[in-house]
Amino acid sequence: MTEPTQQPVPSTATSDPLRILITGSAGFIGSHLAERFLNEGHTVIGVDNYISGQRSNTELFQEHPRFTFIEADVSYGIPYEGEKLDWVMHFASPASPPHYQQFPVETLMVGAQGTQNGLKLAHAHGAGFFLASTSEVYGDPLVHPQPETYWGNVNPIGVRSCYDEAKRYAEAITMAYHRSRGVNTRIIRIFNTYGPRMRPDDGRVITNFVHQALRGEPLTVYGDGSQTRSFQYIDDLVEGISRLMMVMYHEPVNLGNPDEFTMLELIQVLEKGMDTNLNVRFEPLPGDDPKQRQPNIERTRSLLGPMQPVSLENGLERTVQIARLNPS
Amino acid sequence: MTEPTQQPVPSTATSDPLRILITGSAGFIGSHLAERFLNEGHTVIGVDNYISGQRSNTELFQEHPRFTFIEADVSYGIPYEGEKLDWVMHFASPASPPHYQQFPVETLMVGAQGTQNGLKLAHAHGAGFFLASTSEVYGDPLVHPQPETYWGNVNPIGVRSCYDEAKRYAEAITMAYHRSRGVNTRIIRIFNTYGPRMRPDDGRVITNFVHQALRGEPLTVYGDGSQTRSFQYIDDLVEGISRLMMVMYHEPVNLGNPDEFTMLELIQVLEKGMDTNLNVRFEPLPGDDPKQRQPNIERTRSLLGPMQPVSLENGLERTVQIARLNPS
Repeated sequence: MTEPTQQPVPSTATSDPLRILITGSAGFIGSHLAERFLNEGHTVIGVDNYISGQRSNTELFQEHPRFTFIEADVSYGIPYEGEKLDWVMHFASPASPPHYQQFPVETLMVGAQGTQNGLKLAHAHGAGFFLASTSEVYGDPLVHPQPETYWGNVNPIGVRSCYDEAKRYAEAITMAYHRSRGVNTRIIRIFNTYGPRMRPDDGRVITNFVHQALRGEPLTVYGDGSQTRSFQYIDDLVEGISRLMMVMYHEPVNLGNPDEFTMLELIQVLEKGMDTNLNVRFEPLPGDDPKQRQPNIERTRSLLGPMQPVSLENGLERTVQIARLNPS
Repeated sequence: MTEPTQQPVPSTATSDPLRILITGSAGFIGSHLAERFLNEGHTVIGVDNYISGQRSNTELFQEHPRFTFIEADVSYGIPYEGEKLDWVMHFASPASPPHYQQFPVETLMVGAQGTQNGLKLAHAHGAGFFLASTSEVYGDPLVHPQPETYWGNVNPIGVRSCYDEAKRYAEAITMAYHRSRGVNTRIIRIFNTYGPRMRPDDGRVITNFVHQALRGEPLTVYGDGSQTRSFQYIDDLVEGISRLMMVMYHEPVNLGNPDEFTMLELIQVLEKGMDTNLNVRFEPLPGDDPKQRQPNIERTRSLLGPMQPVSLENGLERTVQIARLNPS
């Protein structure tokens, strides 16, 4: 055991005011990023086309003096003509299976043209470029847990490939702009993240369970419920992003919580938190559904310092609280 | 052993005249495709921007009454406004490591925007779309030989990823247009192919060896020369493409010759064919160089029927003959 560090870890909380453009600002993660940056005194330009983002997430900041919003599809260009940017954060994309399978071509485009438009904008402004990639680049992994050096096991022609391959491409073009054009880039691979302001129809397991529980419906479990997932609370993700912005490191960094839970364990935590018994309905696994994914966070820890992640109990409690206020 | 089939295998040789647009028509493979289609009575529209294609390959057909050429970068659109197309064949891309590493962003773009522009054009014309993918989607394979069902082992952020990930993305968007827009698509994964009209500076092993031998220089071998490659003669590839156009099959199909040779065996065949002794200079392996790749051609055979591939001896002989006429 080493002593916990006493030095504050550098993050955007201690930096000079920055001008930060966020694509996908009306999405789940984008809106939490915007909130944090505004609270820290930075200026935020949000961009979204609402293909999967929510207008209510823009309304949260609409009156804020340091927030401006541009409604645009970043796959066709980012119409920003303001002052010099410090960061372009590319978080736009349908990110849950029902959304990206509904919009496969749009998902592919925001990974390719959208990422490239962000890189060009960052290059033109001499700004940093921050790519939201995903643990889905590991596909159905044959290595467990997954370090960033694992090359993944993705079906290039499967029904999920519109998302997985788009993100792998996004990483490749980010590295190409870093290597050949000198753009100051960051790449994170985001593992399963949950929290307030996820879309009720997001289709991912925690949202499904919370909203099914609140509606008094049985919880849908795909397969036999023995598949495991790691769940990261949104505030931990945002903290990791904020710290990585201050570190000069260009290869991918996993951001996730390595604690694993089976679907059935997750239901137990939820039952305890909601102080109720929940019924379960089992359904067959969808095609290409990854069986298991868990971040190796050695690189993350060594770059970003120690974290005190929010427990699943506490994170679920906060998520349920907010969801109760916005029933689906 | 089964008896060899006596029925003629359907191919473009026996089809009604077609109108075929080929992107990358001035490239090595594109020019051989154009030649075959013109000889069979079809109409060919060639498109190239000469980023790695050769003007001499356009000049071959410039006077042909059924050939027209459009100089354009297909990543920015395909400016074709002629009669209804039957096929859009997307063969444009830098394809050898020195070329795509010199043009990483252009390579990524022709895989994404270029492929999408081809798909849109095919969709608008109700035409078939034929994607030239590559064995590089298998990366540094852990399965040997590689069936089409193998998902590959590609480094998404390596120096080759601008090509490999672009092609994986191209496959994903091709399947997305097939599934969601009903485009009649084909995907081939092309293994190492050689023959006349490769660029002398192509950087691939057979071209390097042939031109070094003709210049009386020692042949450069990377590593210890024990790595194996399969080599397909260009006419066999073109025959496979022609047959696949006539088969309604949308998943990827390997096109390659499974016979494997080490670099040192290849040199022996070349020495015999040129009736001379060749010197060898050993150099270190470049980064991310795949060690070994060999097609599993079970699917290919069952879809396209039996092939009588050109032997390495004969193919090298024809390649050396043409290279002698065009010394580098």
